[in-house]
Amino acid sequence: MLEVWEYRSAYKEPEDFDDFWTSTLAQARQFPLDVKVTPVETHLVTVDVFDVTYPGFGGHPIRAWLRLPKQRNGKLPAVVQFHGYSSGRGAAVEDLLWSSAGYAHLFMDVRGQGGDWAGGDTPDPVGSGPAYPGFLTRGIENRDEYFYRRVYTDAVRAVDTLRHFDFVDPERVAVIGNSQGAGIALATAGLVPDIAAGHFQAPFLADIQQSTRTVRTFPYEEITKYLAIHRNSVDRVWRTLAYFDAIAFARRAQAPAWFSAGQLDDVVPAQAVFGAYHEYWGPKQLRLWEHNGHEAGGAEDLAIALSAFAELLHPGRPTETRNS
Amino acid sequence: MLEVWEYRSAYKEPEDFDDFWTSTLAQARQFPLDVKVTPVETHLVTVDVFDVTYPGFGGHPIRAWLRLPKQRNGKLPAVVQFHGYSSGRGAAVEDLLWSSAGYAHLFMDVRGQGGDWAGGDTPDPVGSGPAYPGFLTRGIENRDEYFYRRVYTDAVRAVDTLRHFDFVDPERVAVIGNSQGAGIALATAGLVPDIAAGHFQAPFLADIQQSTRTVRTFPYEEITKYLAIHRNSVDRVWRTLAYFDAIAFARRAQAPAWFSAGQLDDVVPAQAVFGAYHEYWGPKQLRLWEHNGHEAGGAEDLAIALSAFAELLHPGRPTETRNS
Amino acid sequence: MLEVWEYRSAYKEPEDFDDFWTSTLAQARQFPLDVKVTPVETHLVTVDVFDVTYPGFGGHPIRAWLRLPKQRNGKLPAVVQFHGYSSGRGAAVEDLLWSSAGYAHLFMDVRGQGGDWAGGDTPDPVGSGPAYPGFLTRGIENRDEYFYRRVYTDAVRAVDTLRHFDFVDPERVAVIGNSQGAGIALATAGLVPDIAAGHFQAPFLADIQQSTRTVRTFPYEEITKYLAIHRNSVDRVWRTLAYFDAIAFARRAQAPAWFSAGQLDDVVPAQAVFGAYHEYWGPKQLRLWEHNGHEAGGAEDLAIALSAFAELLHPGRPTETRNS
Amino acid sequence: MLEVWEYRSAYKEPEDFDDFWTSTLAQARQFPLDVKVTPVETHLVTVDVFDVTYPGFGGHPIRAWLRLPKQRNGKLPAVVQFHGYSSGRGAAVEDLLWSSAGYAHLFMDVRGQGGDWAGGDTPDPVGSGPAYPGFLTRGIENRDEYFYRRVYTDAVRAVDTLRHFDFVDPERVAVIGNSQGAGIALATAGLVPDIAAGHFQAPFLADIQQSTRTVRTFPYEEITKYLAIHRNSVDRVWRTLAYFDAIAFARRAQAPAWFSAGQLDDVVPAQAVFGAYHEYWGPKQLRLWEHNGHEAGGAEDLAIALSAFAELLHPGRPTETRNS
Amino acid sequence: MLEVWEYRSAYKEPEDFDDFWTSTLAQARQFPLDVKVTPVETHLVTVDVFDVTYPGFGGHPIRAWLRLPKQRNGKLPAVVQFHGYSSGRGAAVEDLLWSSAGYAHLFMDVRGQGGDWAGGDTPDPVGSGPAYPGFLTRGIENRDEYFYRRVYTDAVRAVDTLRHFDFVDPERVAVIGNSQGAGIALATAGLVPDIAAGHFQAPFLADIQQSTRTVRTFPYEEITKYLAIHRNSVDRVWRTLAYFDAIAFARRAQAPAWFSAGQLDDVVPAQAVFGAYHEYWGPKQLRLWEHNGHEAGGAEDLAIALSAFAELLHPGRPTETRNS
Amino acid sequence: MLEVWEYRSAYKEPEDFDDFWTSTLAQARQFPLDVKVTPVETHLVTVDVFDVTYPGFGGHPIRAWLRLPKQRNGKLPAVVQFHGYSSGRGAAVEDLLWSSAGYAHLFMDVRGQGGDWAGGDTPDPVGSGPAYPGFLTRGIENRDEYFYRRVYTDAVRAVDTLRHFDFVDPERVAVIGNSQGAGIALATAGLVPDIAAGHFQAPFLADIQQSTRTVRTFPYEEITKYLAIHRNSVDRVWRTLAYFDAIAFARRAQAPAWFSAGQLDDVVPAQAVFGAYHEYWGPKQLRLWEHNGHEAGGAEDLAIALSAFAELLHPGRPTETRNS
Repeated sequence: MLEVWEYRSAYKEPEDFDDFWTSTLAQARQFPLDVKVTPVETHLVTVDVFDVTYPGFGGHPIRAWLRLPKQRNGKLPAVVQFHGYSSGRGAAVEDLLWSSAGYAHLFMDVRGQGGDWAGGDTPDPVGSGPAYPGFLTRGIENRDEYFYRRVYTDAVRAVDTLRHFDFVDPERVAVIGNSQGAGIALATAGLVPDIAAGHFQAPFLADIQQSTRTVRTFPYEEITKYLAIHRNSVDRVWRTLAYFDAIAFARRAQAPAWFSAGQLDDVVPAQAVFGAYHEYWGPKQLRLWEHNGHEAGGAEDLAIALSAFAELLHPGRPTETRNS
Repeated sequence: MLEVWEYRSAYKEPEDFDDFWTSTLAQARQFPLDVKVTPVETHLVTVDVFDVTYPGFGGHPIRAWLRLPKQRNGKLPAVVQFHGYSSGRGAAVEDLLWSSAGYAHLFMDVRGQGGDWAGGDTPDPVGSGPAYPGFLTRGIENRDEYFYRRVYTDAVRAVDTLRHFDFVDPERVAVIGNSQGAGIALATAGLVPDIAAGHFQAPFLADIQQSTRTVRTFPYEEITKYLAIHRNSVDRVWRTLAYFDAIAFARRAQAPAWFSAGQLDDVVPAQAVFGAYHEYWGPKQLRLWEHNGHEAGGAEDLAIALSAFAELLHPGRPTETRNS
Repeated sequence: MLEVWEYRSAYKEPEDFDDFWTSTLAQARQFPLDVKVTPVETHLVTVDVFDVTYPGFGGHPIRAWLRLPKQRNGKLPAVVQFHGYSSGRGAAVEDLLWSSAGYAHLFMDVRGQGGDWAGGDTPDPVGSGPAYPGFLTRGIENRDEYFYRRVYTDAVRAVDTLRHFDFVDPERVAVIGNSQGAGIALATAGLVPDIAAGHFQAPFLADIQQSTRTVRTFPYEEITKYLAIHRNSVDRVWRTLAYFDAIAFARRAQAPAWFSAGQLDDVVPAQAVFGAYHEYWGPKQLRLWEHNGHEAGGAEDLAIALSAFAELLHPGRPTETRNS
Repeated sequence: MLEVWEYRSAYKEPEDFDDFWTSTLAQARQFPLDVKVTPVETHLVTVDVFDVTYPGFGGHPIRAWLRLPKQRNGKLPAVVQFHGYSSGRGAAVEDLLWSSAGYAHLFMDVRGQGGDWAGGDTPDPVGSGPAYPGFLTRGIENRDEYFYRRVYTDAVRAVDTLRHFDFVDPERVAVIGNSQGAGIALATAGLVPDIAAGHFQAPFLADIQQSTRTVRTFPYEEITKYLAIHRNSVDRVWRTLAYFDAIAFARRAQAPAWFSAGQLDDVVPAQAVFGAYHEYWGPKQLRLWEHNGHEAGGAEDLAIALSAFAELLHPGRPTETRNS
Repeated sequence: MLEVWEYRSAYKEPEDFDDFWTSTLAQARQFPLDVKVTPVETHLVTVDVFDVTYPGFGGHPIRAWLRLPKQRNGKLPAVVQFHGYSSGRGAAVEDLLWSSAGYAHLFMDVRGQGGDWAGGDTPDPVGSGPAYPGFLTRGIENRDEYFYRRVYTDAVRAVDTLRHFDFVDPERVAVIGNSQGAGIALATAGLVPDIAAGHFQAPFLADIQQSTRTVRTFPYEEITKYLAIHRNSVDRVWRTLAYFDAIAFARRAQAPAWFSAGQLDDVVPAQAVFGAYHEYWGPKQLRLWEHNGHEAGGAEDLAIALSAFAELLHPGRPTETRNS
Repeated sequence: MLEVWEYRSAYKEPEDFDDFWTSTLAQARQFPLDVKVTPVETHLVTVDVFDVTYPGFGGHPIRAWLRLPKQRNGKLPAVVQFHGYSSGRGAAVEDLLWSSAGYAHLFMDVRGQGGDWAGGDTPDPVGSGPAYPGFLTRGIENRDEYFYRRVYTDAVRAVDTLRHFDFVDPERVAVIGNSQGAGIALATAGLVPDIAAGHFQAPFLADIQQSTRTVRTFPYEEITKYLAIHRNSVDRVWRTLAYFDAIAFARRAQAPAWFSAGQLDDVVPAQAVFGAYHEYWGPKQLRLWEHNGHEAGGAEDLAIALSAFAELLHPGRPTETRNS
């Protein structure tokens, strides 16, 4: 087991990484934060659910579920959650954990996805060059057109959106996710300086180049398949991806972080999680689950996050108390 | 599509079906209803979770999660839920839907299972004759020793347990489940005369003999595999299973019922769901999902159930009000 | 075998089908036919290859290979070819058959694809709503935004492009393809009134709704998977697809046509080919290959097409001669 | 190939290993050896077959086939054979090899199994805690309740049973098996001090912990699957299994032994066989089959065993002669 | 189940079927029956095993195991057995059933096979035209060169060989086999007029043309694959195979026969077995195993055969007695 | 990546390797080079296609397609091409690349194959010993009878045949192929001293012994499967194969060579290509495609070969000019 604990990624970030993202976010923030919030009838009695639309990359409308404990007073700590690859934000009555635990909970839809596992409602109005079926190779020949440039920006704007609500305490916003969701959460933690906590379960999109060599499964296989056909795009593709590797964001993230990995994971290799973990800047912990695959710790990871966040973010305790 | 709507099962029930179950339940009810209820620390603020142990078949200790909305007054309507094959009751912080919707929610562990998908905590202290790996053929040569005799009895005792709590309105107890869980729920609705409502998503264990011929997948394949080896047990096996087919229970169930089926389901054939539906005694509806498999309507089914149960069982409205 | 020969599709076309396509093509033809033609160095001595870019739907630049027999005089008969799903126009030195047989040969790149099997070079600059990975469900909720609206239009413009060359005889232009390529060729034959001949090998995109029920394989499965998640989009999706079903185009196509089908085809069911064949308006033949799958007649089909086209389109004979 | 020959297992046995087994066997031997022997009509003329029932663990009735050469005089050498995982003792007319070679041949049924490959007739009257479908995780949280505690004890009692027959020479009893059968045979050779010979073909249940890491196939995968759900049981599970690892028994076995292994075996890794082989106490040989999987040497292994046992156990030669 | 019991094959036999086989056998019988018999050292005490070589088709040397009960007097009844596709006669110490039951047992090696499942020792010195990997399409374009012409002839000569031994009663020779072996046995029963009994377990090579349409698995798939490439050989191939379909031989076979079939068999469809059964000339029985695949009744079938043959062929009773 | 570039094979060639091949070729060349050339009607206008039959090993008739640019004067450079395993020379109108590039192109049929992928027309009149289905183990127990002895000899005679045409420049004959075709091309380049160039795409049959250990896929798996049954043939089999390993031929080949390999190739491991490459005697280059499997560089490899051969062999330039 030592092996994987000692793994260090060979990933190198581009010199203008920060410039790229600074200007990308600046552009996106030029669109005013016009947020639409519509209550949803769910028959729930302990949680309120709202359908939220806010401007993401290019000002494109991004959908999310906002869930709040019905009993609330003062400002709430908050959790922004991102979902796995090809999935969507799902149904209004799903994912009640974080709101039931006393958090404002925003579950962002990844644009263009939502066609498998769970439904989504957010279009991606941007086209792409020739691509392998899926999302990983859309726009992959050019960092400006790459799919995840839009998605990571949407995620940062999700935090902006949550913070602009007066019932949310902007200093107590955490980001979480598993798989693709964890990769997006890592990117967000690296791009937004004052995130309060992060939980990253088997994060996809970290140590990408090595991961495509280590595992021969989808979704990473989409990149390999693309390069198998576009044999002369190899350098260009890795150059693009270097702007999106979660390791670079991990180096910039300061929030206390909880990582988890499944040692038998053949979708996101455990070593890639260590690659991101070792370079994570903030305080951090990693739980390696020896007998699990991509599900990693499953509900056990959630219990860990609930407990850790409870101590750090004090759900159920009014902000005023905390600041006094 | 007409085809499946018009399907009628050839299942025939044994003449002494009612005797068998009357005496089985009578025996089980001789064990006093000693229930152990332990609060669980979950960091949730809107829902209370308790670890419940109650005596099932043979008085064996059965585990369940009891979840209640933290804000409650008067007697609550209640939902007993059963899980799918090989799974378990899972973690305390999962499955918050029904308690968040204002119900007392009891999630029963199926004995001996809980080794796949989600964990369980309930042993099955009874052995079995030679069996194919799995649970479907344990004790299958004899109705008295068959695995599901114990499980269905545990389920009836779960209703008994829930009703004995003074915070539960015994007249407003519903049973739900999907797959194996729906089969157990159907059995319960047939065995307990005054269940208030039922939701049966892709019910397993209905029209068993025909289903083993229609689909060639697990778990029904366990029966085929067993008979492939125990070639002389064929009649004995079908005789045993006749006491456990959900169709017989459907004929005796009076609660308003919502069924769902996936037309592409290759685990539980859609026609088997119709087989049970057509013979269901109480008021009933069936939603057939044309492009879905065993997941049937997924969260859409839950939304239907939430809405239907809300009208029927009035969560959030005190019992007193209702009775006046 | 009678069974499949007698199959008739239940497909119904929308009343405004022709309006939709008339206006779609009119819009596309407002973009002037600026065609860029660049010779490619291939080391071939009998065939010249050119890289062509022309304006397709929305005036978007579409790439194609143009191959001509080096020895040519007078106007050439021509063949426009379309490739299979997820593939691309491939390499310059591939697909020498039709130019070697004396035709001007234009091999169109399908936009956005070209990431599997063979490379492509044509972006699709248009985004889409939530979609299942792949191309079949992009924009599927709305006929105006559906992926194949753009592709079929690109194909019509490919014919326009080929005809505008002075070395091509515009009255002798055939369309061919296999699988997706055959579907596009059928659409083109229905949209361009004076196509001279068509060869349709195992055409995809005909009798779509029934085909998704008949086969449970990709790519048709993409539609099923989408509808499994977007359960409320069913009617909307079938309404969209009705504007793109090759059967509607077959009804309008007048060119002499050669169809082929593989009886064991589990990608495009043979019956769907018969569905289109029976409704094809022009003179027609169908060759059913009893022991083949999606490859249908393979090189045997090509030999049939070469021979049929030779008789009809007279490659190697100058136009002048023919007209005299 | 050196690699595997030099492999040494890291297995550590519990300090009270011998105590555990001494008391387990003592308990079992308190049940008097009431053996039921019923002749079976088989139409064979060279071999007699008997259906035997004897008391195993807990005095539970265990079934076995006893086969004897029809022509016999004096005391016979004997072979006790154990079958593979999920299988059973099969039919009376199968497995004629050892009786045809002049041995009293007892083929024990593994309790509760016999539902796949070959039928069995022996129930396991003991239940278990939550378990993954199969037999490997039944009672795995507690050494006293673990499935193989009962099975190994049944095996020892099978030897006791065979020896109690007056036509068997108790000093010439060998144990054999392949896969699970070889694991049980190893356990028996370690638990019964004066076994005369052993043949162990691709023994399962040796070096268990490492094997679950080396191969990702069933049955070892059952343990991994269980631990993937019961994440907090890891230490407890390995502690239980330490009492059942064939390596511990190998250290105590004195009979001359023949091992075989398939280098390509992905069910029982070859290195695990070496793990047991190297620690085997008695005289030993191992044949590694380089191009074979779990079948190892197949009939070649049997020929080796026949020849070796012939020299050692003298079938066909009356005991009296030998002792004179 | 009625369905399969009522199935009738559409197979039509060629007019010169008998001529073809008469001349084929006549040619083969011109080679003198020089038989080589070598005792094999096996360490068995109840059975003697001999390695036999005899002249088959073209006089080519064919290998077989001859096994005899060691205790024998008078003339023995005999069983000729044929093995399954791609397999071989295996090892000397295997397949002891029939000799242990008092028969002279000849187990013929199928030429050229013996490379999978069990080893063989018989070359096929004849080459073939282009063929799909395997044996089914070797020489398939021409009845004279077809692989099974040689194999069936070898089988007839195996009976000739067995009968020429003076310890065999030529009037009590049975033929048996499963799968390919059963097909060969059927052919033999049809070609040799005075066979005494036959046991045909899931016979391959009956109703060949329909079977290649009914199942899509190997080995029948070899024919489909060949025809998928050799599209113009279709008629020629079916014409060849018509000389080798077991149904034609069944029509000519007079020996009392026991058939068995597995209703779930996806290698040899159950209906094909009925196709042969219904046209079998002699007295006959068929046992359909409802929950079994290609293994059909397994050891149960053997028990049936043992019992039936015991009554009919009187193993253990000297010929003299029987004739008196 | 260094790893694979530095790989060296442990293959050892037999001392009498050259004797074996010298006498083999001498024998074959005793059959006079009677070549039959029949023009084929193809409807092509730039290329002429001929059906060629020439005497191969044993004088057996071998078929090939000969394709020539219609416009030709002087002597042409030529390319002999060999196809992949189980395939055939295909249809007359396929594979137009090399003739379109100005070469006389001979595409040899591999005897006995041609039953999968593409059709063949060449019988192999030689039989074999017991073999695993396929071609790799036919005659594998004896170098004189091994299948590839005949095939390699056929290939040498294909070069002889091409050179004997007066329209071919015998000093400008190249050999090419992919997979099995590349292995045969390598053998030919080693056996014919004055080949002008070679292109070897993912060559099969190099470093055979190690490759069967490295990959567990067909066709190499055929050897493993054979040895799994014929356990005592191991040494004999490797001894046979040593006479056919492409590495031995590479050591003797002097023509400038272009190799390619796919790093993810699981049919022919990339290291085996390096094994042959490093020992190749003539000038050489290797292109490793990092993201490709057995297809290696696909059309990119062809473009490289076209360009390299253009420079070396001057297609389109008359021989006279070149020699002046």
